[in-house]
Amino acid sequence: MIKRETNVDEILKEIREIINQMIPKEAKITEVEFEGPELVIYVKNPEVVMQDGELIKNLAKVLKKRISVRPDPDVLLPPEKAEELIKQIVPPEAEITNISFDPSVGEVIIEAKKPGLVIGKNGETLRKIAQKVYWAPKVVRTPPIQSQTIYSIRSILQSESKDRRKFLRQVGRNIYRKPELKSDWIRITGLGGFREVGRSALLLQTNESFVLVDFGVNVAALNDPKKGFPHFDAPEFTYVLKEGLLDAIIITHAHLDHSGLLPYLFRYNLFDGPIYTTPPTRDLMVLLQKDFIEIQQSSGLDPLYRPRDIKEVVKHTITLDYGEVRDISPDLRLTLHNAGHILGSSIVHLHIGNGLHNVAVTGDFKFIPTRLFEPANAKFPRLETLVMESTYGGSKDYQMPRDEAEKRLIEVILHTIKRKGKVLIPAMAVGRAQEIMIALEEYARVGGLDVPIYLDGMIWEATAIHTAYPEYLSKNLRNQIFHEGYNPFLNEIFKPVANANERKDIIESEEPAIIIASSGMLVGGPSVEYFKHLAPDPRNSLIFVSYQAEGTLGRQVQRGLREIPMVGEGGKTEVIQVNMEIHTIDGFSGHADRRELMSYVARVKPRPERVITVHGEPQKCLDLASSIHKKFGISTRAPNNLDAIRLK
Amino acid sequence: MIKRETNVDEILKEIREIINQMIPKEAKITEVEFEGPELVIYVKNPEVVMQDGELIKNLAKVLKKRISVRPDPDVLLPPEKAEELIKQIVPPEAEITNISFDPSVGEVIIEAKKPGLVIGKNGETLRKIAQKVYWAPKVVRTPPIQSQTIYSIRSILQSESKDRRKFLRQVGRNIYRKPELKSDWIRITGLGGFREVGRSALLLQTNESFVLVDFGVNVAALNDPKKGFPHFDAPEFTYVLKEGLLDAIIITHAHLDHSGLLPYLFRYNLFDGPIYTTPPTRDLMVLLQKDFIEIQQSSGLDPLYRPRDIKEVVKHTITLDYGEVRDISPDLRLTLHNAGHILGSSIVHLHIGNGLHNVAVTGDFKFIPTRLFEPANAKFPRLETLVMESTYGGSKDYQMPRDEAEKRLIEVILHTIKRKGKVLIPAMAVGRAQEIMIALEEYARVGGLDVPIYLDGMIWEATAIHTAYPEYLSKNLRNQIFHEGYNPFLNEIFKPVANANERKDIIESEEPAIIIASSGMLVGGPSVEYFKHLAPDPRNSLIFVSYQAEGTLGRQVQRGLREIPMVGEGGKTEVIQVNMEIHTIDGFSGHADRRELMSYVARVKPRPERVITVHGEPQKCLDLASSIHKKFGISTRAPNNLDAIRLK
Repeated sequence: MIKRETNVDEILKEIREIINQMIPKEAKITEVEFEGPELVIYVKNPEVVMQDGELIKNLAKVLKKRISVRPDPDVLLPPEKAEELIKQIVPPEAEITNISFDPSVGEVIIEAKKPGLVIGKNGETLRKIAQKVYWAPKVVRTPPIQSQTIYSIRSILQSESKDRRKFLRQVGRNIYRKPELKSDWIRITGLGGFREVGRSALLLQTNESFVLVDFGVNVAALNDPKKGFPHFDAPEFTYVLKEGLLDAIIITHAHLDHSGLLPYLFRYNLFDGPIYTTPPTRDLMVLLQKDFIEIQQSSGLDPLYRPRDIKEVVKHTITLDYGEVRDISPDLRLTLHNAGHILGSSIVHLHIGNGLHNVAVTGDFKFIPTRLFEPANAKFPRLETLVMESTYGGSKDYQMPRDEAEKRLIEVILHTIKRKGKVLIPAMAVGRAQEIMIALEEYARVGGLDVPIYLDGMIWEATAIHTAYPEYLSKNLRNQIFHEGYNPFLNEIFKPVANANERKDIIESEEPAIIIASSGMLVGGPSVEYFKHLAPDPRNSLIFVSYQAEGTLGRQVQRGLREIPMVGEGGKTEVIQVNMEIHTIDGFSGHADRRELMSYVARVKPRPERVITVHGEPQKCLDLASSIHKKFGISTRAPNNLDAIRLK
Repeated sequence: MIKRETNVDEILKEIREIINQMIPKEAKITEVEFEGPELVIYVKNPEVVMQDGELIKNLAKVLKKRISVRPDPDVLLPPEKAEELIKQIVPPEAEITNISFDPSVGEVIIEAKKPGLVIGKNGETLRKIAQKVYWAPKVVRTPPIQSQTIYSIRSILQSESKDRRKFLRQVGRNIYRKPELKSDWIRITGLGGFREVGRSALLLQTNESFVLVDFGVNVAALNDPKKGFPHFDAPEFTYVLKEGLLDAIIITHAHLDHSGLLPYLFRYNLFDGPIYTTPPTRDLMVLLQKDFIEIQQSSGLDPLYRPRDIKEVVKHTITLDYGEVRDISPDLRLTLHNAGHILGSSIVHLHIGNGLHNVAVTGDFKFIPTRLFEPANAKFPRLETLVMESTYGGSKDYQMPRDEAEKRLIEVILHTIKRKGKVLIPAMAVGRAQEIMIALEEYARVGGLDVPIYLDGMIWEATAIHTAYPEYLSKNLRNQIFHEGYNPFLNEIFKPVANANERKDIIESEEPAIIIASSGMLVGGPSVEYFKHLAPDPRNSLIFVSYQAEGTLGRQVQRGLREIPMVGEGGKTEVIQVNMEIHTIDGFSGHADRRELMSYVARVKPRPERVITVHGEPQKCLDLASSIHKKFGISTRAPNNLDAIRLK
């Protein structure tokens, strides 16, 4: 729990004086407050401020803060009234599908099939809306597939808006507190995911601030919290949690090994500060966290946290788009950049101590274009330390070229179909599943594949979230969707599996089929169900398209285990005979392979002084670190969990 | 402050049952308690237990604890009565000079000029004393020079014995608490003295325990606590202090850069646990700490701590002789070994987690025989990580051979005397001063040197402490003292300077003289006074015989600064012209030079898996680490302050 004494009242007083001098009286300022990483000015007449396009810019320059001007809550029309007016102003051809309000920021979110018509020529319609209803209008394209997750997140933010505003103010006051000392030293401690994959968590510390980058769980080691959870026993982490000194948590992307233990912090009241991440990461991580506890529940385990803890995650998340620069503490400035790994995945860039040092943490990243995403960003304003993943950091970890991988995938599928078999592709609901979908969709459209592709276990819902954030997808896909008007995710070849009965039907059917099901490493989820039933039949095929971590069933099967004891329906253990074909096609990975990792270091601008390799088996982290040192002469380290490394 | 819940009552209950079974009833056990790192059994009839020589050994084996049997306080004779009886029993030829009592351990300390006669044939006299007075007799040779420090320490321990026993019991209960978890990880954090000299402090952490090795102050950087003090702002250290989790502090040796901030912890109630060190280190550090605050006071500064805080250091110190093995927490076992640097200096060996890992921290050490000490111990039962000093770790840091250094010293002295000049040798009161004394004493005795050698600034008192611990001196010196009956420290050529008047007389006298005065780096103390007055006269000589740290006046003069602004008697700044000859003779150093450092790594048994270089300028630590890695293929590190290194 944040417990710092922030004493910003003095600072706010000075700021208010400056604002009163610069903003015309007619704007009628009612309040000036820090809310999250912004300074918010509430006025009764926002138009007065908006008329002068330079006014806010100048103010921001003078105050060195990001500034939002919002209508005073008193002047906002009641939502029903506002909705009515908006519908009158916007032409019906815009096809508004939903209007929702976020009172915590005075925003009205207008979903429309043709967002251009809501905006109007030069933003005319939008301006008119603002003038009439006072709510700040935000226009969103109606997602072609409805996402339950997105709607429930919006409704949480709407219904909890009072708490939310209180929270944002608390955060704002913490960010803009007077620093106790000049920035002096910086270090990072590995709490998890150092020389291993799973439970990623990095604690960055300065003499002023503390932030976590990622807070994951190792789903393959849940029976032992000492291995499954980040190191709660690291003394500096215990201290920071106990004293309420954690300024923020930044999440690189939604996968559970990076975000899966976040709600746990809320369950045990260990944190009530802000979580920074992109909007798609927020949505996807909530989806995966829910899925995670449901799987635990259905396996008869006591879930690590409850749905209401996930709700707290939503309430505490502040989203940032790529490239938005925000102060998150007196000496830390955060920017998220595209990582190319999954939807919304980010490289975290921290500008520390007003230029004392700059760190980028890649999270998981990809450095070639994929069907879904652009390659990871490799240009930063400044960069001294690069913390990079090493999943494929071994000297022989070269992946198959993407087109070859797709060719092999099709081959295996065609062979399997020919012998009337089924193809099971275990894939994380988020990421690989959609990449495979797009590849197969093209082949279905162009090459004539005509067996159904079943999507089971959150994959459909994850896909819905993809369609809601087209601006986070690759240029190609965006073009296809926006300009060619064709959304490949909507191809009818895709059949979401709604429940266990449908799943049973698919398994029992004699027809060939492709099944993409989560989890990707056969640790719980429907993929395990399919595997159990499809494994004994030699006509079937299993295709691994993603990294199989140490300790997972996927890894065992991949390594050749052919007799697997599993708990059957009656609760009894039975031995599953694996007779199906087992294939591994690694070209679909969302992780940079060895070549990409090395080329990232070669191309990243500016050249870092130090590279720290993490997120890989020990030998891969070490190998990558030593190769980078040899090739580029950059100082490298492959630290262990609980190592703390002084950066400055 | 120690705040752990120790719940040892259960453990003690079990132990008492076992003891009751093994010790005969007639011994009349009155109490069984942990006191410091021992289990103490109080009995009304100690003889009963003592009769069976194997009994305590067997008990120790069964209980896996160090065991002391003590007379119940009720049976102890009153001190006056006991003293009377002892004087009756011991023959007058023994020449008892002092008898003091330490009620906290039921000990009577008998000082005699002929200790052998107090012990008697086969310990007969001693046994007789024990039988009559019940106090456990400890016989000590009467030091030939009276040390005020030693007497005041003894009197503190005697007068505070009630508090002391309470303290020892608290410590014992902490040491033998039930560990919360199995030993799992071990790491060290550099709080000070990493890649620098000064403010040495290393925090060793396991998932069960926390100990500090050394807690020094950088006397050359006192104006900036951020550089002068160890890193109180290291989050794990803040945590450990705040939560009262620091199990112990171990002090390698008395120099202020290793022990100088200890009393500060007591001044601010940050610690009330045990300090482990050798008896001479305890005495010498108390002397140096007192000197330190007196110098601060006389310079018009507010001293960092008060005399009563130094008293707390005494009350909290538990002394160990070299080779004594003691549990200091549930998963840490400590042994101190000779380091050859100064009187009582130790290499700290920690056996961690019942064999999980073994660390040795050299502190400052010397690996060739000197006039005063044997070379550092290089043999350990087990050793995986070696943390070693690097003061002379640079590739060119070879010192002059000792005999050559002595020759040069004599040369400079003779030249100076010839031209009627004075020789000023700034030296730390502890260490170099005595080494130079012994060298000059031999030359005076054998070679005919006949100018007075003045000892100023605690040097005489430090010498007194040396004479009180002959068993900590080199074999040669011990032989000279015990068997040849000649103590070189007592040569009449040495003249302690008692006060400022005497000092003035020496300075103003026209006669040549040798002056050995502290501090060794010209940071306060009488050496600075002498320097001010002797510097302008070209007949005089200044000889540096020890390391001059960055930031000290000594370093500046050594580097060639010849005009020095200094505050004169009236408080005005005057510029001192340095016309005296400036010499540096490095062969007297108490630090291993580059050759010794490398040879230590070559010879230390067993060969460590990892060497961590500390306590040296950055380039020296790095150079030494890289040379050790190249030559021995051992993994090395030269960490920064605030780096934390996982050992296991």
